Amino acid sequence: MTYCIGLYMNDGMVMLADTRTNAGVDNISTFRKLTVWEEPGDRVMALMTAGNLAVSQAVVNLLHEGIEFCDLSKSKECSTETLLTVPSMFQAAQLVGAAVREVYKTDGKALQAQSANFDVSMILGGQIKGRRMRLFQIYSAGNFIEATEDTPFFQIGENKYGKPILDRAFTYQTDLATAVKLSFVSMDSTLRSNMSVGMPLDMMVYKKDSIAVETRRRIEPDDQYFSSISQVWGSHLREAQASLPNPPWLNGKVS
Amino acid sequence: MTYCIGLYMNDGMVMLADTRTNAGVDNISTFRKLTVWEEPGDRVMALMTAGNLAVSQAVVNLLHEGIEFCDLSKSKECSTETLLTVPSMFQAAQLVGAAVREVYKTDGKALQAQSANFDVSMILGGQIKGRRMRLFQIYSAGNFIEATEDTPFFQIGENKYGKPILDRAFTYQTDLATAVKLSFVSMDSTLRSNMSVGMPLDMMVYKKDSIAVETRRRIEPDDQYFSSISQVWGSHLREAQASLPNPPWLNGKVS
Repeated sequence: MTYCIGLYMNDGMVMLADTRTNAGVDNISTFRKLTVWEEPGDRVMALMTAGNLAVSQAVVNLLHEGIEFCDLSKSKECSTETLLTVPSMFQAAQLVGAAVREVYKTDGKALQAQSANFDVSMILGGQIKGRRMRLFQIYSAGNFIEATEDTPFFQIGENKYGKPILDRAFTYQTDLATAVKLSFVSMDSTLRSNMSVGMPLDMMVYKKDSIAVETRRRIEPDDQYFSSISQVWGSHLREAQASLPNPPWLNGKVS
Repeated sequence: MTYCIGLYMNDGMVMLADTRTNAGVDNISTFRKLTVWEEPGDRVMALMTAGNLAVSQAVVNLLHEGIEFCDLSKSKECSTETLLTVPSMFQAAQLVGAAVREVYKTDGKALQAQSANFDVSMILGGQIKGRRMRLFQIYSAGNFIEATEDTPFFQIGENKYGKPILDRAFTYQTDLATAVKLSFVSMDSTLRSNMSVGMPLDMMVYKKDSIAVETRRRIEPDDQYFSSISQVWGSHLREAQASLPNPPWLNGKVS
């Protein structure tokens, strides 16, 4: 499995991905799922992938090599594009979608013949100089949706364990440092509950309009800061629990 | 969907179930999923069900009417039993399993013909006078597992959103009042994230060796205590989040 979080804020973006892949519990490996494209001053983009690893890697390779891409605007011009050449984040998301469809054309039938799913989902975030910062979730059909102030985060892979904390605490107004902390708490909950999500983690922090990566970091299993977040959060939860009001209808002799 | 929690402690048990059933988002109903059998001084048992509603109801009806049941002990004696007649909680779990298999015999093939799953899972908890309090999870094959001090809770239905709080805060040593609060927090997280889990809730609290139901309660959508738990928990989480240490490697200008 996989767990990736993309947080979209007024201040910028935080992207966090685990690295565990597995073909059964007896076949576990570590692969980077967060890829960053950066031309400081011109553009920053980051892509996180979940699902079939061969499909994910093929998509990322196509995006590096460039693919024949006809944009959907009036001009319908075709050219060979990469994430470093497209003129907008919308076209970047279209390009990722086109790469997904290209891999489907090549591998889809053969996967089906082996009863394997063409199963991939992605989160793409970034900003090109002079344009809006944007965050997209891209589906296996190559179509996509965009994060908004109302729904300012996307998750792919094992999303349920880590969702309640984001639902309760994360908003478009959250600052970057707090977003980093919340993404760690969300990831920590998922790591504890699903063995197929695993350390190390890859993180990218982007400050809006900076057009340069703010922080890129691999968080190893012995990372002191990550451990401290996990511990401090645990002790706060125990305090929080202790201060919840008692059920007034529960017989006194019980509590 | 459904969300039911069974908490097993040194002090007793807490069982909490939602009541929402759905056949598509355009067909939502309310059904009780927690059934209690009580003969004060003799036995208390509570069963929670998730999965196909027709299957769940058929199982509960069979348990009320009594079914031909051959126990697995040496004697292999057969008789018509209900949960009010079996001599042990182990045999109670066997009886529920037998009821599930009976319904499978009747309905399994017809469900398959309609491409519907024979999909049911249950949590059974209780105590018979002079014997141990026990908590079981029963699968659609009629087999079952038992909660222990190491793994002192079971969940059925939509279990993921509400699991991290139980993983972090609930143990076999937790007292009954705290267990009630934790079950509410876990349920609240699930209600927020999955529309197919819904109020009202049904709760049963049992104090070990009392051989009588301690508290049985329906929690309506406007329940003041449930709302206060949800609000107080939310504000504690925001405080907890504010007091997490800042990432030392994140550039000062960002945070």
